[in-house]
Amino acid sequence: MTLEDAQKTLEKCWRPRADVEEVSLKEAGGRILAMEVISKIDLPPFDCAAVDGYAVRAADTFGADEDAPRRLLCVERISAGERPRLRLSKGRCAEIATGAPMLAGANAVVMVEYAVQRGDIVEVRRAVSPGENVFKRGSEIRQGTKIFLAGSGLSPSAIGTLAAIGIGRVKVYMRPRIAVISSGAELAKVGMKLGYGQVYDTNGPAMCEAVKTCGGEPSYLGIAPDEAPQIKMLVKRGLASCDAVIISGGSSAGAGDIAPSVVGGLGKPGVIVHGLAMKPGKPTFIAVVKGKPVFGLPGYPVSALMIFDQLVAPYIRRMAGTRPLTRLTMRAKLGRKILSARGRRELVPVKLVKKGRELLAEPLMKGSGAITALSMADGYIEVPLEQEIVDEGEVVEVVLLG
Amino acid sequence: MTLEDAQKTLEKCWRPRADVEEVSLKEAGGRILAMEVISKIDLPPFDCAAVDGYAVRAADTFGADEDAPRRLLCVERISAGERPRLRLSKGRCAEIATGAPMLAGANAVVMVEYAVQRGDIVEVRRAVSPGENVFKRGSEIRQGTKIFLAGSGLSPSAIGTLAAIGIGRVKVYMRPRIAVISSGAELAKVGMKLGYGQVYDTNGPAMCEAVKTCGGEPSYLGIAPDEAPQIKMLVKRGLASCDAVIISGGSSAGAGDIAPSVVGGLGKPGVIVHGLAMKPGKPTFIAVVKGKPVFGLPGYPVSALMIFDQLVAPYIRRMAGTRPLTRLTMRAKLGRKILSARGRRELVPVKLVKKGRELLAEPLMKGSGAITALSMADGYIEVPLEQEIVDEGEVVEVVLLG
Repeated sequence: MTLEDAQKTLEKCWRPRADVEEVSLKEAGGRILAMEVISKIDLPPFDCAAVDGYAVRAADTFGADEDAPRRLLCVERISAGERPRLRLSKGRCAEIATGAPMLAGANAVVMVEYAVQRGDIVEVRRAVSPGENVFKRGSEIRQGTKIFLAGSGLSPSAIGTLAAIGIGRVKVYMRPRIAVISSGAELAKVGMKLGYGQVYDTNGPAMCEAVKTCGGEPSYLGIAPDEAPQIKMLVKRGLASCDAVIISGGSSAGAGDIAPSVVGGLGKPGVIVHGLAMKPGKPTFIAVVKGKPVFGLPGYPVSALMIFDQLVAPYIRRMAGTRPLTRLTMRAKLGRKILSARGRRELVPVKLVKKGRELLAEPLMKGSGAITALSMADGYIEVPLEQEIVDEGEVVEVVLLG
Repeated sequence: MTLEDAQKTLEKCWRPRADVEEVSLKEAGGRILAMEVISKIDLPPFDCAAVDGYAVRAADTFGADEDAPRRLLCVERISAGERPRLRLSKGRCAEIATGAPMLAGANAVVMVEYAVQRGDIVEVRRAVSPGENVFKRGSEIRQGTKIFLAGSGLSPSAIGTLAAIGIGRVKVYMRPRIAVISSGAELAKVGMKLGYGQVYDTNGPAMCEAVKTCGGEPSYLGIAPDEAPQIKMLVKRGLASCDAVIISGGSSAGAGDIAPSVVGGLGKPGVIVHGLAMKPGKPTFIAVVKGKPVFGLPGYPVSALMIFDQLVAPYIRRMAGTRPLTRLTMRAKLGRKILSARGRRELVPVKLVKKGRELLAEPLMKGSGAITALSMADGYIEVPLEQEIVDEGEVVEVVLLG
């Protein structure tokens, strides 16, 4: 089954759904808005000075220049945050700070650089036109304006904008909770001493971290040896406490291959996809149980991470309310020829290497088993279904990992 | 003073220093390693099967093909995680699962696809050479190999690699604590009702979020009206509890201009930079008090964010142990001519707009005051010190914000 067919099959029995919660601005950074935001206030909320200087009636300054300054009587001093006391009449001005409210009667501000104050008298040395250096009420944002659509990501500047219109709490999409289970009799938990024949569980921590980078909240349920009762118990626990379950390992056609049948027995419709026409990916399975998806990924760490990226990550992003991600890719020249099987899409992990001014994508050819490839791979390239050879020196698109 | 000179001046009296803490793998994602990591184990820790199949003595399979299969006696079945019981002798084989330890005497694995088992007899239909389909002990990572250098970022695959070699706790750089203060008599806290002449504090939440994106931990100390005692109290509090202080507003040459003198009075050397030869940035100041830096940023939100990006962010990143960031930039055609003052570097906020197949950078020309520009600006372009005009249609480098 191709990846696309597997996705269609899954979406026939399950649709990713994004839940909503309300958080304060302090916690909202990096989250995704689940509401549209309409400003309840004008911004600025009042006419105010855009510069430090003197609020004037513009007509009083007409004709003013270095040689013919206009003299005005300074009657008030308005700091930011203060309410002006007076109404400005002809021939008068008020010292005003940036952001301070304009006083009635004034319609422009002379920048401090173009005025000289001596006692109560201000010499204005440049004319201003009506409205000059004044921020009009609502000129930035008018009350009732839609500022953000649902689905917007909350960057520092978006957080600032929400603050500017006085919005301190927002509805955002909840982080979907994703259970992570590692299956395999050979797995030992990091921190334990390795017994003979054991290796440390690599996929557990790696999958948890990958879930986080998609906006999900991982719940690591631990290691299930390849035995039905333990797998059953952990998957059931994941289904009860989380929105989806990822189980890696335990799904190849080998000696300890029991995860799909155990998961399939937990409820309808059970396993709906088993095996993807892609390398790696043969042992991948997808089940839906109690309305929640269970993704069975390969046991090999690099394979698990690539299949996660292709199959699982887009669903977690949708459950987190994120719009489909434009994948980060880089173009590079292939460093070594790749041979691929026809009729199967192949994902080849590559390391990016700078060679002179060129960027080379070096395939990591150790087979899908290389654990080191995890730390060496910068990304992977896709060889399409029908293609058998990608030549050395060909320009390829590298999908970046992590 | 140019930005570069300001940086030199600062670094004469203060050097960003990265502190170190130890965390578990679970908390380590996205952090920066403060140690080199050397593997204490071989990976794999034992010779193991790279595929599901039959462990054999390679010589027993020589000459085998579809027409002339070799018949071997299957004497054992080894699952992953199991210790083999036997030593393989001539003419015999053992069923073996991927990742299971090889048994003594065997030196290759025949893939299950090329063998047929009938009772105890396995027909091998393809020859294997010594070492084929076997992962040798230490072939991935040899004990004593340096896996990561200090300064490496911990991506999902790096977390996986650490797990693979059994490392459950790592030393990472601490997130520097950065005090954030907003100064201005006109500022109201988000959540309060606006009084006449007041605007909501935008910089506080925006700066906190910007600090987070650089790997810092913000501590928002609130609003100081432009009055000496309050500014003094909050800055002192920031210096006592944090590694650096950011105060925005209160530093222009206007009516309420007291932050630099108050901060300067708190200790030696005090204010070492006041005013940058860049727009925005004139009111920027830098002080060092009690061995910690205080950054005074403009009050206008977009200006504050751009100066943060240029001046403060690189220091927070260094305090967080991150290597200097390759700034994310995009090339775009300038949508409208820009006039700039000679002798002053200008940062112009721009919005990126797709027009047909072209990407245009539209300058947001409302002056440095626009609060809306915060949510509209995708980034900014830099007009160098000596340049006065950038023409419409010129290709410019847009530094992306947020």
